Amino acid sequence: MRRMSKRGLTPQGGDFSAWYNEVVYEADLVDLSPVRGSFVIRPYGYALWENIQRELDAMFKATGHENLYFPLLIPMSFFEREAKHVEGFSPELAVVTHAGAKELEEPLAIRPTSETIIGELYAKWVQSYRDLPLLYNQWANVVRWEMRTRPFLRTTEFLWQEGHTAHATAEEALAETRQMLDVYATFAREFAAIPVVEGEKTEGERFAGALQTLTIEAMMRDRKALQSGTSHYMGENFARAFDITFNDVNNEQAYAHTTSWGFSTRFIGAIIMSHGDDAGLILPPKLAPHQVVIVPIARGKDPEAADRVLRAAADLAGELRTQGVRVKVDDRDGTSPGWKFNEWERKGVPLRMELGPKDLEAGSVMVADRLSGEKTAMPLGSAPAQVPELLAAFHDRLLERATAFRDANILEAETYDELKEKVEHGWVYATHCGDPESEARIQEETKATVRCIPLVGPSAEGTTCVHTGKPSGYPRKVIFAKAY
Amino acid sequence: MRRMSKRGLTPQGGDFSAWYNEVVYEADLVDLSPVRGSFVIRPYGYALWENIQRELDAMFKATGHENLYFPLLIPMSFFEREAKHVEGFSPELAVVTHAGAKELEEPLAIRPTSETIIGELYAKWVQSYRDLPLLYNQWANVVRWEMRTRPFLRTTEFLWQEGHTAHATAEEALAETRQMLDVYATFAREFAAIPVVEGEKTEGERFAGALQTLTIEAMMRDRKALQSGTSHYMGENFARAFDITFNDVNNEQAYAHTTSWGFSTRFIGAIIMSHGDDAGLILPPKLAPHQVVIVPIARGKDPEAADRVLRAAADLAGELRTQGVRVKVDDRDGTSPGWKFNEWERKGVPLRMELGPKDLEAGSVMVADRLSGEKTAMPLGSAPAQVPELLAAFHDRLLERATAFRDANILEAETYDELKEKVEHGWVYATHCGDPESEARIQEETKATVRCIPLVGPSAEGTTCVHTGKPSGYPRKVIFAKAY
Repeated sequence: MRRMSKRGLTPQGGDFSAWYNEVVYEADLVDLSPVRGSFVIRPYGYALWENIQRELDAMFKATGHENLYFPLLIPMSFFEREAKHVEGFSPELAVVTHAGAKELEEPLAIRPTSETIIGELYAKWVQSYRDLPLLYNQWANVVRWEMRTRPFLRTTEFLWQEGHTAHATAEEALAETRQMLDVYATFAREFAAIPVVEGEKTEGERFAGALQTLTIEAMMRDRKALQSGTSHYMGENFARAFDITFNDVNNEQAYAHTTSWGFSTRFIGAIIMSHGDDAGLILPPKLAPHQVVIVPIARGKDPEAADRVLRAAADLAGELRTQGVRVKVDDRDGTSPGWKFNEWERKGVPLRMELGPKDLEAGSVMVADRLSGEKTAMPLGSAPAQVPELLAAFHDRLLERATAFRDANILEAETYDELKEKVEHGWVYATHCGDPESEARIQEETKATVRCIPLVGPSAEGTTCVHTGKPSGYPRKVIFAKAY
Repeated sequence: MRRMSKRGLTPQGGDFSAWYNEVVYEADLVDLSPVRGSFVIRPYGYALWENIQRELDAMFKATGHENLYFPLLIPMSFFEREAKHVEGFSPELAVVTHAGAKELEEPLAIRPTSETIIGELYAKWVQSYRDLPLLYNQWANVVRWEMRTRPFLRTTEFLWQEGHTAHATAEEALAETRQMLDVYATFAREFAAIPVVEGEKTEGERFAGALQTLTIEAMMRDRKALQSGTSHYMGENFARAFDITFNDVNNEQAYAHTTSWGFSTRFIGAIIMSHGDDAGLILPPKLAPHQVVIVPIARGKDPEAADRVLRAAADLAGELRTQGVRVKVDDRDGTSPGWKFNEWERKGVPLRMELGPKDLEAGSVMVADRLSGEKTAMPLGSAPAQVPELLAAFHDRLLERATAFRDANILEAETYDELKEKVEHGWVYATHCGDPESEARIQEETKATVRCIPLVGPSAEGTTCVHTGKPSGYPRKVIFAKAY
């Protein structure tokens, strides 16, 4: 097994990127695979994804969506039916040319996203306005052949969910697009303690084939932005390409309006970089695989005392589990308590409970908080009642810290020089005219992009573009930032 | 949307295969896709799979397994490292030769199963006996390019779980292999009401690369067998091919012993064909997407009465939900109650509750049982307490019926002529010598195969092979049957 080097992780302030690349392996989240850009998601990383899935899936169902499953392989010709879609995705396709020991008549692409094959079926399922809306989602793997890959952030294969809905009117489809963005934002805030900013992408950053792309953007500890979930309104584009038509209430033929929305294992990267510190991960309690780890301190030559401690640790764990707490007892032999403390700090477990013979005598347990670093004694008997409260408070403190960090690092620029200077230190509100050429030029010169036109933020009324001096292209100032 | 033809389904007794092919579409379980042999799993079918997943996953975790995720794509050369494995799987591989608009240096296969890529990583993760056992599972899609496909039973892409474990000794690995078979058998019986037979495969029917393949075999309503889950002991085969070695307690290098075990969407086919009848599906309550459907009978010209009925139906559904019952209110307009009854019968919902103005006046609700076909009035007030009991009893009756059917259709043959005759009517216990050539000959002549050497069954002691007259190759008589 890979063991951590003695010197620990590279400090975030020294080289954030190196810190990230180390912590994903050292915290046992991923491993390299023999296929370039594909990673193995190890049990500790996958448990995080399972918790994300469970909570998001419940939110999808609560908003009326059902799950289904479409095939992995898509005929190449399908991509060509929507001009922008093929332009956006064809450079990244992985293509099956042979199967069953024969060359295929038509090559098949591994899905990079499923609008096309889903469009084909929706055309069949939708005949009348009575068949609408279709509110479906699938949990699936997708492949996009990326040049530069990094664990979770950009991988040739990744896991995600893709919701695909069809509606009778533009209004309904736009409301769905917005509703699912809000689901993502609520999930990010309430489960991952990440105070994402909701906004709309500029034309150049839209999903290939969409009329509107909404996004949630999260600020990492290095002040870069990470796009963490997107929701797209396709208008009639895919309905026209795949002939999704229906008889409306007046018995006239109309095109459906479709949406899609996706959230992926990339979000694990957002969790890592939103909360982690020099000692490793700090996991939000509602998603952490282990919310509490109990380390029995059972050293020494007294096997009876050691036995008492182990039994007390198991009892405590049992009581916490009845309170719905996810708890692990680390009773490994041949590993020192200090080593275990380091490991669970690196793995970001919110609360560590240390239990030794002296604690037992005193009827108490030491509780170490991963966020504050503080250690306090707690009466053993009150732990089952107190720990759920501590975890809830941990979530709140984590969210507060992330919100304060975000707010302290969203700056504002009145001039292009100010933008260039400030975007080195954080996100920057600035007025932009909306001209794609100007956007591209700014990116060239600053490495920053328009992350979004935020749904809430400073008004651009009466201001002019910091770059071109033209009138603002949007009702609000946009957010410029460097991004992953 | 596809609508059922007026004449209903082909009767099972007329053409079982036609019945199956109709019911999977007419019950909205699947749809055709544009890729040959790949099917869309529609929400009703996928909900069944989600329920299967949830229960099986809990059983895996209760037996100490963790989930993780390995890449979809596997370098072609990996398959060649285990001679029997490549022989078994290479004819069925789907191969990616181009990706990112370039030809790949080494083609990549879409996983047909993941022993090879997992072996590569396990070799890295296992160094010492302290690292063992590895008890991991993944939920994933796989692709096998089959010539003849049928929904759920044999599809080019399917969903499954594949457990992969590594152990220090053969004993431990064999115990794991058997434990997971028992998990499958328990799941089949207790959740799907399918009384599977547990047994071992003969050499010719083993998984490619295994030393032992255990199987659960289910009897369909046409008396054919369906292999419904398998658990394999690999010995050191994959450990040698991928160099999974460790330092044992004596600090000597040893090969790990590995297992794998899989359960797939094929099991949905087992559910359909174990329980269904001429009217359609009959779903086991513990896995049914809807355990109860409430049909409000709100016809007529009295909108107030209709409103009362709809409200009472919603109230009843709410009360049932608090009892943990999965319930759907079918309040669709423009569809007659009779049409709805037919649809939910076809879709196999265990209990249908009919609620009209007269029922409301009488303070009762009509309950129709999908298995017995009986309709009885139940006091509305006692429904929340009684329905969970009715569902539990439904499960028991379904299992009893399937067990009686299975037992009535396992015959026994003393001679080859008897075998040939009886295998036309059911499964047949008979003594076999174990010679693969004899097995092949019997298959040629009867279309029947050895489904398994059952773990429990008539002893073969003192008997001789019905085909060759040689001594029995196994401790028990084997089961011959035609199979899917």
